[in-house]
Amino acid sequence: MSSLSLQGYRGTRDFYPDEQRARQWIYSKMREALMSFGYEEYQGPIVEPFELYAAKSSEEIVSEQLYHMVDRGDRRIAIRPEMTPTLARMVAARFGQLPRPIRWFSIPTCMRYERPQRGRLREFDQLNVDVFGGQALDEDIETLLTSAQLLLSLGATHEDFLIRINHRGVVNDFLYKELGLDENLKSPLLRLLDKRDKITAEAFAEEALNLGVPSEKLPNLEKFLSCSIDVLPELLPNHSENTRALMERFEVLRSLLPERCFRFDASVMRGFDYYTGLVFEVYDTNPENRRALFGGGRYDNLVGAFGVDPLPGIGYGVGDVGLLNFCEVHKLFPHFQKPTDLCVVRFSTEDRMQALELSQLLRSVGLKVESPLSGQKFGKQIQAAEKTGAKAVAFRGSDELANGTFSVKVLSTGVQKQFPMTASGAQTLLLEIRDLSNEE
Amino acid sequence: MSSLSLQGYRGTRDFYPDEQRARQWIYSKMREALMSFGYEEYQGPIVEPFELYAAKSSEEIVSEQLYHMVDRGDRRIAIRPEMTPTLARMVAARFGQLPRPIRWFSIPTCMRYERPQRGRLREFDQLNVDVFGGQALDEDIETLLTSAQLLLSLGATHEDFLIRINHRGVVNDFLYKELGLDENLKSPLLRLLDKRDKITAEAFAEEALNLGVPSEKLPNLEKFLSCSIDVLPELLPNHSENTRALMERFEVLRSLLPERCFRFDASVMRGFDYYTGLVFEVYDTNPENRRALFGGGRYDNLVGAFGVDPLPGIGYGVGDVGLLNFCEVHKLFPHFQKPTDLCVVRFSTEDRMQALELSQLLRSVGLKVESPLSGQKFGKQIQAAEKTGAKAVAFRGSDELANGTFSVKVLSTGVQKQFPMTASGAQTLLLEIRDLSNEE
Repeated sequence: MSSLSLQGYRGTRDFYPDEQRARQWIYSKMREALMSFGYEEYQGPIVEPFELYAAKSSEEIVSEQLYHMVDRGDRRIAIRPEMTPTLARMVAARFGQLPRPIRWFSIPTCMRYERPQRGRLREFDQLNVDVFGGQALDEDIETLLTSAQLLLSLGATHEDFLIRINHRGVVNDFLYKELGLDENLKSPLLRLLDKRDKITAEAFAEEALNLGVPSEKLPNLEKFLSCSIDVLPELLPNHSENTRALMERFEVLRSLLPERCFRFDASVMRGFDYYTGLVFEVYDTNPENRRALFGGGRYDNLVGAFGVDPLPGIGYGVGDVGLLNFCEVHKLFPHFQKPTDLCVVRFSTEDRMQALELSQLLRSVGLKVESPLSGQKFGKQIQAAEKTGAKAVAFRGSDELANGTFSVKVLSTGVQKQFPMTASGAQTLLLEIRDLSNEE
Repeated sequence: MSSLSLQGYRGTRDFYPDEQRARQWIYSKMREALMSFGYEEYQGPIVEPFELYAAKSSEEIVSEQLYHMVDRGDRRIAIRPEMTPTLARMVAARFGQLPRPIRWFSIPTCMRYERPQRGRLREFDQLNVDVFGGQALDEDIETLLTSAQLLLSLGATHEDFLIRINHRGVVNDFLYKELGLDENLKSPLLRLLDKRDKITAEAFAEEALNLGVPSEKLPNLEKFLSCSIDVLPELLPNHSENTRALMERFEVLRSLLPERCFRFDASVMRGFDYYTGLVFEVYDTNPENRRALFGGGRYDNLVGAFGVDPLPGIGYGVGDVGLLNFCEVHKLFPHFQKPTDLCVVRFSTEDRMQALELSQLLRSVGLKVESPLSGQKFGKQIQAAEKTGAKAVAFRGSDELANGTFSVKVLSTGVQKQFPMTASGAQTLLLEIRDLSNEE
């Protein structure tokens, strides 16, 4: 019989304990950061009816990336490619009961059929953060603050990332009102702006002219794409509402975040249909990893198609793949270690009851204790204990049995000491072990 | 346009924040319990190649319950119906490198096509706990201890559950050696023992006779199925190895767990092919919920079919659906509340900067703070704050702005107090808020 493959499905990952600890550490920091702003966690199903995604996901996701199937009862379902459709369904289902503002986050596993590459896999976890039911300006500011806080909570500094901010209304004003371009050309134009960084100035100019940008306005378009927020009113003298909204956000932000970590960038698009107001992308500034870590934006109506009143809001999604890279490149991970405090060891398998009772006593006061499962020699058990990261070993030999104690040997110092085989003896040990941990 | 359904796919669940908090609470208790025995968490993909399940899952799962599909590259994959095949693959893939014993747990989401009913859904989370690479007796005892500890860590008492323990070797000895039955009848016989509780004594006797149990041995079979562990040697006088192994486990267990919470039960089967030694099921003793909460058993070779050496071990799986019921029936859930400490309120939207700076200052010392997102009247903001579970509201009016302070009003007492608008003012507030929380 030929043997089964040891590989999982392409674009998925196995998380062995060390890797899982790193991921859990990131998630616990993110939860902490978001809860400090009053966000609450929710969760939904890993599959949804196909129609939900057909109605709420992008054309690209539905036609190219969805994992879908027909169940044994002939219902068409799909594995979650993103959380937003489920979020919309859940909010719409309790539309009247949920107190406003709704501040929610979730860390769902998602799947998309894509070509796996650095920073992108087929199966990924994606933190989703959304807020609705408040004033747009307040929600936008809070969203930019939580984005920054996520990275800061991992130990990043304000130099490690840059938030590039744009406004879809401003882009539309500039293209269609200021340059007078045809609104039917929307998608190709936005796509051209989006790829501005990746092509030469000549190629950009040529494509822009082809799309109908008047040659005398080309310098203005180029100025727009690289201008700072303060220059914006000069370029859009007649269309002030969206510009004013965007400038107001910058004004508020300046009092709350160092200026080096955010800036206006007219080329930030974040997809072509979905967003209606503020859009943003958070970039890693490290030269080895200069890429968009995550982003999001404002939408007019999350719950459209569910037959309830419109509910505008703003949200973003943070993939775990990029975030794990970010933490690695910036060396943010602490030294992860198995949290075992003590290993109980025994002189022979006949000592089993002694070792089990000692383990149980030590656990009862809150110590993390590994009991021996093998008949290895004493010395081998000590070696094995060292590999677990335990601070000490505990045991009962004939002396300890005779005088009602147990012995503990600290692995780092070799110092050995007896404790009474009682709850208060175990409590005393607990304090000493906590001291050892603090010294590290 | 007709509107989209608000329902998710049948047999899946939406977890709104309150429900998600309950689940997270259970998971954090389980993680704590398992880490106190030295278990480490791992995670794997939500889909695997179909062949993995075809080789490692039961016939019933593969032919009736699997959600499978063909991807866009013509690879057949399936949504995880259980974790064990992934566990086997991961252990086999690093077979040589993983230090023994391997003590692992995971909390995967799984899907099986089943008829949804109380305690059973199509999508569920299932804690998996496994240990390999030690001596069978030690592993078996530890497994029974962690099973009990999971429930104890949720606040259950030893009266709330009963662990029914059996040994497949003992059952086989009794049926084939002692009663002399035909080993080819394995499955129907085991199935009959398994349903013993659910049918009348007459129906049981009739089916047993039909399956070839000699009528003079029928009383012995009935005795076997209801006997206590101490009577076992009388019923199996000539086949002592498995019986001795099982009795040894009871002997050790008696020093570690109260006798009322475990007992021998020859009718516990846990599936018909998989297990080879100890098997067990943990039952809820509450009359409203008298059902198997979870169970597991010993298997000879987890990594069979991967071309590595055999690796025996023991493991069990705990579904979240049954556990949520258990906590409800036994009223184990604490009072869950949003952890917000304070809501900042403002007198008008023009106070935005003041409110945002105050929120930021309070968060910087570790307080959980909700900023206002609306232009509601002051009184409405206070009402909204009360709904969040915040202990107090904080604000800056003209007085506070003039004298460089902020005010805090404790919601439960109405007491109001000023603090300096500095880090040390915020620190002082933090201590007072912590005191308020401790008084609750």
